[in-house]
Amino acid sequence: MSRQHTVLWELFRPSSVAVVGASRHPGKVGHSILRNLVASYKGKIYPVNPLAKQILGLKCYPRLTAIPDSVDMAVIAIPAPKVPDVVCDACKKGVKVSVIISSGFSEVGNHELERRVVETAKSCGMRIVGPNVFGVIYTPIGLNATFGPPEVPRGSVAVITQSGALGLALLYRFMGVKGLGFSAMLSLGNMSDIDFADAIWVLGEDEHTRVIALYVEGLRPLRGRAFIEAARHAAKKKPIVAIKAGRSKRGSKAVASHTGSMAGDVSIYQAAFRKAGVFMVRSLSGLLDASLLFSLQPIPPQPWRGVMIVTNGGGLGVLAVDAMEELGVTLAKLSPETRSKIRSMLPWFASTLNPIDTTASITTDTYLEVLHAAVDAPDASAVLAMFAELPNMKGEELAKGMEDILRHARERGKPLLLVYVGKHEIFYQFAAEGIPVYESPYEAAEALHALEWYVRWRAKHAQ
Amino acid sequence: MSRQHTVLWELFRPSSVAVVGASRHPGKVGHSILRNLVASYKGKIYPVNPLAKQILGLKCYPRLTAIPDSVDMAVIAIPAPKVPDVVCDACKKGVKVSVIISSGFSEVGNHELERRVVETAKSCGMRIVGPNVFGVIYTPIGLNATFGPPEVPRGSVAVITQSGALGLALLYRFMGVKGLGFSAMLSLGNMSDIDFADAIWVLGEDEHTRVIALYVEGLRPLRGRAFIEAARHAAKKKPIVAIKAGRSKRGSKAVASHTGSMAGDVSIYQAAFRKAGVFMVRSLSGLLDASLLFSLQPIPPQPWRGVMIVTNGGGLGVLAVDAMEELGVTLAKLSPETRSKIRSMLPWFASTLNPIDTTASITTDTYLEVLHAAVDAPDASAVLAMFAELPNMKGEELAKGMEDILRHARERGKPLLLVYVGKHEIFYQFAAEGIPVYESPYEAAEALHALEWYVRWRAKHAQ
Repeated sequence: MSRQHTVLWELFRPSSVAVVGASRHPGKVGHSILRNLVASYKGKIYPVNPLAKQILGLKCYPRLTAIPDSVDMAVIAIPAPKVPDVVCDACKKGVKVSVIISSGFSEVGNHELERRVVETAKSCGMRIVGPNVFGVIYTPIGLNATFGPPEVPRGSVAVITQSGALGLALLYRFMGVKGLGFSAMLSLGNMSDIDFADAIWVLGEDEHTRVIALYVEGLRPLRGRAFIEAARHAAKKKPIVAIKAGRSKRGSKAVASHTGSMAGDVSIYQAAFRKAGVFMVRSLSGLLDASLLFSLQPIPPQPWRGVMIVTNGGGLGVLAVDAMEELGVTLAKLSPETRSKIRSMLPWFASTLNPIDTTASITTDTYLEVLHAAVDAPDASAVLAMFAELPNMKGEELAKGMEDILRHARERGKPLLLVYVGKHEIFYQFAAEGIPVYESPYEAAEALHALEWYVRWRAKHAQ
Repeated sequence: MSRQHTVLWELFRPSSVAVVGASRHPGKVGHSILRNLVASYKGKIYPVNPLAKQILGLKCYPRLTAIPDSVDMAVIAIPAPKVPDVVCDACKKGVKVSVIISSGFSEVGNHELERRVVETAKSCGMRIVGPNVFGVIYTPIGLNATFGPPEVPRGSVAVITQSGALGLALLYRFMGVKGLGFSAMLSLGNMSDIDFADAIWVLGEDEHTRVIALYVEGLRPLRGRAFIEAARHAAKKKPIVAIKAGRSKRGSKAVASHTGSMAGDVSIYQAAFRKAGVFMVRSLSGLLDASLLFSLQPIPPQPWRGVMIVTNGGGLGVLAVDAMEELGVTLAKLSPETRSKIRSMLPWFASTLNPIDTTASITTDTYLEVLHAAVDAPDASAVLAMFAELPNMKGEELAKGMEDILRHARERGKPLLLVYVGKHEIFYQFAAEGIPVYESPYEAAEALHALEWYVRWRAKHAQ
């Protein structure tokens, strides 16, 4: 990594954080940020507030420059007009990254105020996140410098979001999906300095991040090339998935009225993303679905041999094939050996073409045996299990048996996905066990689409 | 309704049901069916089993013809070879509809056995469901003649499914989605006699059904015209949504190997469905999402004036506009009056173009006021509320206030949808209250697509 990137690294691994605008009053943003840091951050924390002596048991300082030790990161949550002075102080103090939570800058037309802040920071080599952000999270060291929820589930998904509200809302939502967790989360807001390219450079090197998920409204002018370079570099190591808001004509107008930035022609973004190794999803759910797969399952080796489907419901199998053909996902061609091995486990009227339709006349144990054999088969790069809850084939039995299958799949480096149509309370049990689980075949096919695309991209671009 | 349809009506409103193959042994199909009937059916129940005197407290008969009273429906769950004799008995007994649960007929190549059953039934004017089905449900009279779960949530969605496993699995799944419930469910299986056209005729007239959802693999040969006529007739009264399995080349091959029937060219189905007033969805989730909207919300009057969006997150608004443009859903054009009314409630930097972006700087109360005004506005045919969970805007507050808004929307006959990105446990609260709720903008846009399509279809075709 270049020296520039070494400074950027402080974004996620500061040894000390100051909160400027720390407040004693619960409900205030400056209180929530401090509370979240105190809850889990392993580094040093310095509240800054000229009117308080102590907050949450920590000694309070009147200003940044009064702190006796070094400060890597300053989180700034004070009214916009006062921000430039604090940024000056941060420069003097040798702060490496300032995270400006405050709003009231370019997003409401105050371009001049934002320009002043950026110039001050530049003059001393300090980097800026924001303004107009909800903060930054890096779970491996318990860093939660946001005013969002205090408990962030640990995991391997890193999210970089241009919209603060969306990022926060996703945080609340992820908390309910057991099995899915974050390594990092970064709100970019106005992107006056640190942008997608910067964040991707750092997270590409992060050993705790297995997949990077982006919510993009628009790149900064003249930063297209930097984005492509950063993403290409990172994508050789790990998948990047993105949702681009403002893909439609009216959507792009809405981006303009929302952020004041231009969303740009979607075809340009599409080409740039493809080149950069970034998989573009169509919906927010698609972003979560692909992230779930990449964070929980291994990337299979090239060449891509297609997907093998095992289903206890013929209808589910047909729907999966429809979705996969529509999206262009390759079905595996099964060898005679694999077919005859599996045929010996099933009744004569079951189908051993791909999809393998076990029929609903068997037991869950037999289904699990077939699934085990499917994971073993060298014919496919990934296995999609589909299971319809039936009086004679219960999700509880499947959940019990899946642990073994999952371990087996992991040992063989083979990604395993599950479509489970049935009881609500069991659904989430699978995700908690580490199995990417989907409510219907289409969603699983979308996640597999991302996987196949990525395996093929990497085969072409990685050394 | 013609006389033919009057007989068909016994499918859902029999006054008495006999279970041939009723069993004393829990776990057996013939036991589950009887148990489910005993649990809630309001008519008379007659177990038939030559080896038992009594099952579940009911007097048992050695054969159908031994029952002293009249029998409207016979549910048959015995080995396939014995079915023809029982069907003969049913004819003699004057049974109106026989539901043949048993498998082992044309689906495994036993065409001759199936033909004999159908001919016997025809000779006496009896109708046949199946063979190879999981049964029939009609919740208004507590009829649950299936071996599925005993408790079926009541509601206004009628499901007709060609795949038994998928239908059963959907039943389990619906049980977890509070707010969504069934009026009827019918498994068609081999469709030796009663098919989609028949069932749609009856359910079109059913006052308890607000939406009919179909899972279609293929229509019977020469029954295309009957399907179109039945659907057109029903669609003038209520929406019909369908998922067609085997839309792709490989999917259609899989249908062939699964049911032995031809899936047919998808473009033919598409044209027929469109003509018939049947909205075709792309995924199983889409089927549920559209059913949720139609079952809980009113159909707005024509002409279609578009959708009005209220969001507290600009990013969510942009994603919704993207999805709606992609799918061809019309956004409402807001009048200056509406805009100025709403502008007066919001900070100056909020957007009152459609989508209305309240920004996250307001309170949930203000958001609810804006939503109230949006429901009032004559500019739109439907209102899409989008809400990102934030530290200062909580889903709990929204849930409380939504009751009022929902009542208001109902009084005005205006459909209201919600996209809620946030806490898992709150999400389902909304559906339980009667609000169709979606996890991301794309899913809501798909449901709105079905709604707009249906309003336009009905404007063209209904007198």
